[in-house]
Order: sequence, then C-alpha cells, then structure tokens
Amino acid sequence: MINTLLKHRSIRKFKSTPIPEEELREMLEAASRASTCGNMQLYSLIVTRDKAMREKLLPCHFGQQMVVEAPCVVTVCADVHRFSMWCEQRDAEPAYDNFAWFLTATIDALLAAQNLVVAAEARGLGICYLGTTIYTAGEIVKTLNLPKGVLPVTTIVLGYPDEKPELTDRLPQDAVVHFEQYNDYTAAEIDELWAEREESELTKQLLAENGLPNLARIFTERRYVKEDNVAISRSYLELLKERGFMNQ
Amino acid sequence: MINTLLKHRSIRKFKSTPIPEEELREMLEAASRASTCGNMQLYSLIVTRDKAMREKLLPCHFGQQMVVEAPCVVTVCADVHRFSMWCEQRDAEPAYDNFAWFLTATIDALLAAQNLVVAAEARGLGICYLGTTIYTAGEIVKTLNLPKGVLPVTTIVLGYPDEKPELTDRLPQDAVVHFEQYNDYTAAEIDELWAEREESELTKQLLAENGLPNLARIFTERRYVKEDNVAISRSYLELLKERGFMNQ
Repeated sequence: MINTLLKHRSIRKFKSTPIPEEELREMLEAASRASTCGNMQLYSLIVTRDKAMREKLLPCHFGQQMVVEAPCVVTVCADVHRFSMWCEQRDAEPAYDNFAWFLTATIDALLAAQNLVVAAEARGLGICYLGTTIYTAGEIVKTLNLPKGVLPVTTIVLGYPDEKPELTDRLPQDAVVHFEQYNDYTAAEIDELWAEREESELTKQLLAENGLPNLARIFTERRYVKEDNVAISRSYLELLKERGFMNQ
Repeated sequence: MINTLLKHRSIRKFKSTPIPEEELREMLEAASRASTCGNMQLYSLIVTRDKAMREKLLPCHFGQQMVVEAPCVVTVCADVHRFSMWCEQRDAEPAYDNFAWFLTATIDALLAAQNLVVAAEARGLGICYLGTTIYTAGEIVKTLNLPKGVLPVTTIVLGYPDEKPELTDRLPQDAVVHFEQYNDYTAAEIDELWAEREESELTKQLLAENGLPNLARIFTERRYVKEDNVAISRSYLELLKERGFMNQ
C-alpha cells in the first residue's frame, strides 16, 4: 500500500482504453472520503471523457497530447458555489466569497484530488497533474461552464500507462523535512542538497542543449521565467476578483 | 489499499505513544514521492514532536488538546525559499515571490501532505487536519521560525487513535462530481443533496442546542461567520505580502 505511494511516477503517454465506470466511481468515492473542512466538501471534480470536450481543453493545457490521448481528464476545482446556494435556499447568509475560503476550498480540492490519484495508482492506472491549469484558469472557466464561486486549481490526466518511466529523483528527505522548527539552510547545505542532481548525466545534457552554465538557470531562464510568473499571478488574482473570491 | 482511503475518519483523541522513527521516516518518504511541479518540491514539512514546542503551537490551534496529546504535529508549508536560495547561489534570478508560486507551492505542499496521511492511515495511525492553520498563520510563522517565502497552509496531527469514531456522512457522489462540464444545480437538486443530513438526529440535536431553525444557519451564524472570514482573509493576504508572495 505504502508501496503504491513510493512507486509513483507521472505518466505522460496513455493507452486510449476507457476506464470501466465502476472503477472510476470507486476512485471518485475514495476522493470524496478525504478530509474536508467542516464536512463542507468545498470542491467539484469535473470528469471530462468526451473527446470533443477534451479537444476544447487541449489549448488550455498548451497542446499537451495526453489531454486527448488519455481517456479521462479531471479538472479539480475549489467550489464555494454549491454550499452557498444551499445556504441561500435556507435563508442563511453565506460569507464564503473571500480569500480565506478560496484557500480552504483549495485545500479540500487538493486532498480529494490526491486521494483520487492514490486510488487510481493502486488500480494500476497512471496519472499526470497539469500545472497549466492555473495559467489558463479563465479559459477553463469558460470551457467547463464554471459558475461564480468555482475555480480550477489543478487537473489530473487519468488512464492506463503506455510508458514505464524511471522513478524521478527527489531531494534527500532532510531537504524538505524540518524537526521542531524551521532550520534554515546554510549555503553549503544547499550545495549538498542539489549536488547529485547537478552532477547527473541528464543535467549535463540539458545544459548542453540550452547553452546555459547550470541547472538553476534552466529553471529561471527557460522553464519558469519572471515575465510568465508575473502574468500568471496577475491573471489568477484578477480571476479571484471576478469569480467572487475577493470580497473582504 | 483503496479500503484505507474509504475508511478514513478524522481522529481527535490520541494515545501519547510515540511514533517509531523508522515508521515516521517511511511516511515522510511517501510524502516526498507525491507529484510536484517541475520536480521543484516547493514545500516544507515541520515535524514537531517536542512537547514544549507543541505547547507553543497550542494557542495557534485555539487550544485544541490533540496538539499536545498526540505525539506529533506536522505543519505543512508552501516553501519557495529553499529553491530561491539555490537559484541565488547559482547566479540565477529566481522570480517565485509572487501569487502564482504561492499557489503552485501550496499545491505541492498539499499533495505531499495527503500522501503522508494515507501512509499514516495505512499503518494504523490516525490524523486530523487543522484548519486553524490559516487563521493564525502569522503566529505560526513566528513560533516555527519560518523564513520569508515559507507560509503554513495546513497542519496534520498524527498519532495512534484513542477513539473509534463512526464514518462521517458525505454528500452523495453526484454532488461533487460533474461529467463533461459543470452542470449547475437546480434548487430542487440542492434540497435533495442535503436532505439526508438535514433530517438526521445529529442535526436535530444541533438545532435544539443552538436555537436555530436549520443546519445552514449553524454554519453561517456559529461555525464560520462573516466577520471571522473577512478578518482571516485580510490577515492571510497581508501575510502573503509581508512574506514575499505578492510581487507581481
């Protein structure tokens, strides 16, 4: 069981084999059993199997082919709309249209998402999270017809693996774990934490391809650059305002 | 395995029995295998076992006794500090001090957190997430000595259960799952989704205790009230600014 967690690798090539309805339902059930603030279940999972619909989502994920190749795409949304609607129907005045509840709903949504992922992997399926979701959240809102109070935070591509990638390296456990308090890193510790990755063949190859002197600059100058980071931040904050999460 | 997910219940009463180091390390390993944006691992897990330290955290969690009764409290933090420090040491200019990266780091943090929880429950341990974390995040920052670029998003109390609560009810699966697109709810559907819970003995008891006419008003007038929601939103947004996540 813990083995399922330890063996996780993201899958980016999928067979088109559909997921049996009953299995999908069981995974969704596992998702819905995750912890949720006050048992409010402030999230929605949009399960898109229809190919035409997945083709509409494709540009939102920068054309990554797995969106159409895999049989199933799950858009994971923070959702205070359903709960607020219930409150209004009961003459209760909901006040969940603010940042605290965006954050709370986002937490609910991600715990459910990860349960879905663990259940899927336990059944031999593969998954990939799509970080592109927050880049194009406004487009996804339109494509999936999300009402005010509902915003996508991530997406899971789900299906049967058509590749068997190696386990990705991770930083040593002590890089991400602190005991008692945060023990800030010395410069020497930072060097040590990244040493293995920096010396790997994969890194050498990347540096040659990109004509850059080190791995950190692959991140800052190629993968996640300032201009994009700033633009995404602004557009998501704007969306929070428009979609009713900034009334405080 | 999926059974572990389906059987989850939050535990609020714990034995003081410590968690063997090796088991804790394995759970943390499971956490670190969760999906992470660009393999950047933008989170830190602060494992607090020292009782004096947990006593300092206690007021941050409104005095909930499990914080001192359980052997272990894990504060789950979004962390762009470590990665940015690495970039700076390599003459790469990090630009992760903005909202997009708070969100990305929060996603990383929560997927790791839920893996930790699943691994713990698979081993027979119990957990409870503490939503209070975002209410008092500024105090937690001070208590745990979090540097700029690191903010707590949730907390997991971890230990051996000293109670065996019933499985909590959830909304029917179709309440939180939508196929293809978001299918907005009719008023009748909302009524139906909450009907079972509204008619339960537990609800009747709550209404009598609170002198309120329906369950929704327990939420809006007792549990999560507007004044608090607004105050928490403002303080967390302020903290995002202060701790270096709002430079866009």
